[in-house]
Parts: sequence; C-alpha cells; structure tokens
Amino acid sequence: MTATMPSATPSSARRRLDRAALVTGNLDKLAEAERICGFSLRHEEIDLPEIQSSDLAEVAREKALEAWRRLQQPVIIDETSLELAALNGFPGPLVKFMLDAVGPEGIAGTAAALADSGASAVCLLVLYDGRDMVFGQGRTEGRLVLPARGAGGFGFDTVFEPEGEILTFAELGDTGKDEIGHRGRAWRALVAELA
Amino acid sequence: MTATMPSATPSSARRRLDRAALVTGNLDKLAEAERICGFSLRHEEIDLPEIQSSDLAEVAREKALEAWRRLQQPVIIDETSLELAALNGFPGPLVKFMLDAVGPEGIAGTAAALADSGASAVCLLVLYDGRDMVFGQGRTEGRLVLPARGAGGFGFDTVFEPEGEILTFAELGDTGKDEIGHRGRAWRALVAELA
Repeated sequence: MTATMPSATPSSARRRLDRAALVTGNLDKLAEAERICGFSLRHEEIDLPEIQSSDLAEVAREKALEAWRRLQQPVIIDETSLELAALNGFPGPLVKFMLDAVGPEGIAGTAAALADSGASAVCLLVLYDGRDMVFGQGRTEGRLVLPARGAGGFGFDTVFEPEGEILTFAELGDTGKDEIGHRGRAWRALVAELA
Repeated sequence: MTATMPSATPSSARRRLDRAALVTGNLDKLAEAERICGFSLRHEEIDLPEIQSSDLAEVAREKALEAWRRLQQPVIIDETSLELAALNGFPGPLVKFMLDAVGPEGIAGTAAALADSGASAVCLLVLYDGRDMVFGQGRTEGRLVLPARGAGGFGFDTVFEPEGEILTFAELGDTGKDEIGHRGRAWRALVAELA
C-alpha cells in the first residue's frame, strides 16, 4: 500500500477532481491533499460561514452548498473533527476553536487531566457539483500525548499518536501520516466513490 | 435594586420590546426573559442556523439578520456563552455543544481537572428591527463547582456559583439568579439602551 493515490487513479475520478476546486482557507489542508492525490488541485480561498453543529456531515454539507452558490462550479470541502473520548466526542468539528483557544498542548492537556487520552481524528470530504454530493470519510483512532512531539504537520499533529504507532503524526512525516492519517484515508475513499 | 425591571420601564423601551419577537428554541430562556421583564414577550420558535464562531457578538448578529430575513418583523436574539478560565475562554458561545456532550457536571469536571474553576457567564441580547441593532450584554463572574447543586435554572446553572455567593444559580432561585445573573443584567442593559 502506498501513501499516495494509486498511480492508476481511475480517469473518471481524476476528471471530476480536476474540474473541482478545494475550498478552504487552510493552506496546510491544500498541501496535504495535493501530496496525497499526487497532482495539483484547483483552490479557492473564500471565507465561508460555517454553521454551528457537532455533526460533521451537516457542517460539511451546508458548507458545500454555500460554496457552490457562491462559485457556481464543482467544489470540494474538507472538514476535520477531533473527538475526545474523555469528553464524549467533544469538540468534534469545533476543534478549530479549541485549537485557537488553547493550542494542541491545551487539548492534549485536557484529555490528560481527565485521565483518558483516547481520541479519534476524522476527515470528511464532500465533492458537490450542484447536483450530486459525493462523500469520502477517513478516521484514525489514537491517543493524545504530551509533550508535543515532531516538526511536521499542522493542527493537532504534534500531540496525536495513531493507534499502534510510537510516533505522532508530526513525527511520522508526510508519507507516514498520509498512509494512516484521517485525511489520506478520506481522499482515497473519495476517489473510490468517484471511480 | 430589584431583580425584575424597574416598574417604570420607559414606555419607549416597552413599545419596542412589545413589537419584537424573542427568537429561540429554548423555552427556559423565554421564561427567564419574561420573568425578568415582568411582562409577556412575543415568541417565535424557528430553527436558525448558527454560524460557527467563538465571537459571541458575531454569532448573535448573524442570527439576528437571518431571523429578520425570515420573519420580516423585529426580533430579539439571546446568545449565551460560558468562558472557562482553564481553557482561555473556550467553549464560549459553543457551550451548548459541550453541554450536549458532557452535561454541566462534565464541564465543571473539566475545569476541576485542569485545576482552575474560574468561569464567566455571558448573555448577549440583540434587538434588530431591520434597520438598527441594539445590544444588551450581561456578564457574571464566578466559578464552576462539583457536585452539581440546586433544582432551579437550566443549562449550567447547577454548577455555576457567582462570585461572592455560596449558592449556585440553581440554588439561588429565580429572584436571586435574575438579580446577579448574566441574563438579568443583559435584559436590563438592553432596556437601558432602548430608553
């Protein structure tokens, strides 16, 4: 198994991805997506309002509809969630706000203080062309660790250690992270759906 | 100082409140508002999407605009926030999702585990008539306690002990809570703005 797309990405999938724009203000998500796919993606950096919801699919779906309304071209939305076992899945899709407030160490510190380091990282991709919505979801189980370790990645990568690994996402490097990470799995799932 | 509105609520303020509908799906907020005001309020229970933001004013403002678009009549929005000192103000306006996930005891337990029980309860009211937006904000400092205590109130009332009190909002009773609580202060601030 390779970390990037199989070189034989079905041409139907490739055509649909080529027509779509990844709509995100997060350039780290774009870089990771292009690395995983192995080719460049169109990119639109528009500020989309996000609805408040703890339901990842609902947040992504609404965002895709709004992006389509504004751009009138096929769009891809990347929504990420971090579910803490100690908080029954909170903050989930609201993780970006918890990162803004306390950083990755603050999130890991909360899990540690509550004596349950279990966490799931989830990435949900939605491709919407104004007619059909195609989803690709990737999930990686793991635990939050302190101190933060590694120089790669972004977001909570320095404190997230995938199950069965002794390295954090940030220490695993691009290839390692893409292979077992939530975003790599989500892109491969999306391509499989498009094939 | 009384917990309810001064009986001499300026007639201009009363007229504007009478024309407006409190838009909320939370009947506890409605009951508390009517108790504080001392008169009935129109009420609309529509499901408004809320934008994701850790900025209380931004959430309330967008919700007021959307409520006006749908109802085409003056609207009042009540947005509540709980800022944990241990989490640099998180979850803020996202407190409803943390309540859904772990309940009031889970929030207080998080603060306790992080060894900082300090918290601020904030209520922001927005009256919007399609032209002017009038704000009323109330803030109450306090701390989160365990075990939860008291049978009154709702939300995080059983675990929130206002500064200088030995009772939680839920133990203080309606009059006590309205007098020093974030929502009572917000309504009185709104009326003062409207006078």
